[in-house]
Amino acid sequence: MAKIVILGAGMMGSAFSVPLADNGHAVCLVGTHLDAGIVDSLLRDRFHPRLKVHLPETVQPYAHDELGEAMRGADLAILGVNSAGLDWAAEKLSPVLPLHAPVVMLTKGLRGEGDKLNILPNVLRARLPSDYVGQVCTIRGPSIAGELAVRRHTSVVLTCPDQSAFNSLAGWLRTSYYHVWPNTDLVGVEVCAALKNLFSLSVGIVSGLLEGSPEVENRLGMHNLSAALFAEALCEIAYMVTMMGGHQRSIWTLPGAGDLYVTCQGGRNIRMGRWLGLGVPYSEAKARYMSEETLEGAETAFTIGPTIDAMAQQGALDPNALPLMRAIINIVCRDGPLHIPWDRFFRSEFPSH
Amino acid sequence: MAKIVILGAGMMGSAFSVPLADNGHAVCLVGTHLDAGIVDSLLRDRFHPRLKVHLPETVQPYAHDELGEAMRGADLAILGVNSAGLDWAAEKLSPVLPLHAPVVMLTKGLRGEGDKLNILPNVLRARLPSDYVGQVCTIRGPSIAGELAVRRHTSVVLTCPDQSAFNSLAGWLRTSYYHVWPNTDLVGVEVCAALKNLFSLSVGIVSGLLEGSPEVENRLGMHNLSAALFAEALCEIAYMVTMMGGHQRSIWTLPGAGDLYVTCQGGRNIRMGRWLGLGVPYSEAKARYMSEETLEGAETAFTIGPTIDAMAQQGALDPNALPLMRAIINIVCRDGPLHIPWDRFFRSEFPSH
Repeated sequence: MAKIVILGAGMMGSAFSVPLADNGHAVCLVGTHLDAGIVDSLLRDRFHPRLKVHLPETVQPYAHDELGEAMRGADLAILGVNSAGLDWAAEKLSPVLPLHAPVVMLTKGLRGEGDKLNILPNVLRARLPSDYVGQVCTIRGPSIAGELAVRRHTSVVLTCPDQSAFNSLAGWLRTSYYHVWPNTDLVGVEVCAALKNLFSLSVGIVSGLLEGSPEVENRLGMHNLSAALFAEALCEIAYMVTMMGGHQRSIWTLPGAGDLYVTCQGGRNIRMGRWLGLGVPYSEAKARYMSEETLEGAETAFTIGPTIDAMAQQGALDPNALPLMRAIINIVCRDGPLHIPWDRFFRSEFPSH
Repeated sequence: MAKIVILGAGMMGSAFSVPLADNGHAVCLVGTHLDAGIVDSLLRDRFHPRLKVHLPETVQPYAHDELGEAMRGADLAILGVNSAGLDWAAEKLSPVLPLHAPVVMLTKGLRGEGDKLNILPNVLRARLPSDYVGQVCTIRGPSIAGELAVRRHTSVVLTCPDQSAFNSLAGWLRTSYYHVWPNTDLVGVEVCAALKNLFSLSVGIVSGLLEGSPEVENRLGMHNLSAALFAEALCEIAYMVTMMGGHQRSIWTLPGAGDLYVTCQGGRNIRMGRWLGLGVPYSEAKARYMSEETLEGAETAFTIGPTIDAMAQQGALDPNALPLMRAIINIVCRDGPLHIPWDRFFRSEFPSH
């Protein structure tokens, strides 16, 4: 049994407490300053209002100003804040994180830093104390939080800098329904995890296009179009993974294809995509229909958009390699028109082997 | 304008007539001996009873015994029969196919030949006359036939032995909604096309498992499980592509990820998967619920199952590389139990780069 602290009581951090509690660990779930309502509800009757489930009795909720108390003697810290909260979390964790305790990040994203992209484990590590000697690992893969919270089969990769860290951590995390595979491709996995929400916006667009189109004789939908956008998304993810030094295998396994698949089955990015497909400009759709919701795909576009533009201008990116990503960045960041750049898709199909 | 003959008036062959007709070609749609009812309906009022659309007026239907007449002076032959009809089609085509006319195969599958697997373009070429000098090409990618028939955006790769053949053929085929990309990876593309139906059975199983499971507190589904099976499927397709000498790029573009994605959105294999997920043995589900339907995924299991077993026994396959494929072969060919071999998935995740 280990003492495990989860920082961030949103959907993913909280869902993660379920396999940990089932494994008999002492689990402290610490809300951020934005999670006060959730923590209150958990303290009252263990009900998580966003997951819509009761968490196990052994999960102990804490308020954000109780992080130090929760962290005392912790064997493992789980970072469950969203990417915008990473710097805040690093600042709060730094004075209280035991120097040997590994950190497992659920937080995902890429950080644009001028004309360079950085992966979040590197961003975090640079903000932790210089004498911190623990491992910074990540969990990635197709995980709808609410499904994990009710113990549906969920399969992830745990990416650790070395295999010995993997073995001990995986032993703490695995259950009969939570399947954890090892991975060492930190760069490739992070790129996949960050970009899947952005690309799921484009797949979501199809449902809006379908609603806005005249009915056809056999009443069929537009799955061929969704699938083409799915493949182009994966193709552009492959370009980014390769360009940043990741491994191709991550593209077609859980971090890439698996996570993109689950993200396309529904959720906030898909709902936003529908508005875009109906022709509503991004800023209007966000303000009118989804003003209260964090849209990870759009956040990613805002975060990396200027860096992608800068890299393309400097010749650090093939200007033809990312037509779909750049179309989405243009739609989100500049209320650009909905335009599928067919003639630039799959550009390197022939004879790129 | 070209004279183009499609052999096979099923869903895919017939749908393919629509972009060809829109491009102004003279299109002859020749039914097989199994398509008599379809040809009759087309001759009556151009209505295709399985696509549930009216075909363009310029598509000329022919009965199977009129193939020779239809083929006279043809510039291009399209093979739209299913894989079980390939030998029949080769026999009928051989005496009437102009020696320079390319053949574009819509027919997909792999052929088990003892302890070897063969791709269908090779099977066809070996059965054509020795003095035939045309190109044998294939069209692959996410194409629900009924969507193509109503001019929904559809994206495919046209795989040709050389690029000059691609350029002329693509010019004949492309429309504003039919997007055709070049590819030269004949082996990789064929492996992807053949295996996606087999693996879609496993993704379909999830809907049956869900129906047969107790309801959960937040009423969520099992998308995490579907996504894991999707990723494992792609991982095993990647193994087969690599093992047979294909190129990895085909895995994450239209032939692999794109086509697997669209196949998982519905259709006969997904419906059969549901019965399997509900615990009905394959032979019973086929006989009771889908006796009239061709199940391409199951056909593939029957066709390649013995060869896969033989290759594994001889050490020509890594015995751990294909746990999902072999589970499906066992379910289909031997009414084997429904068992997800979690502990053997993603075996080469660490450190296979």
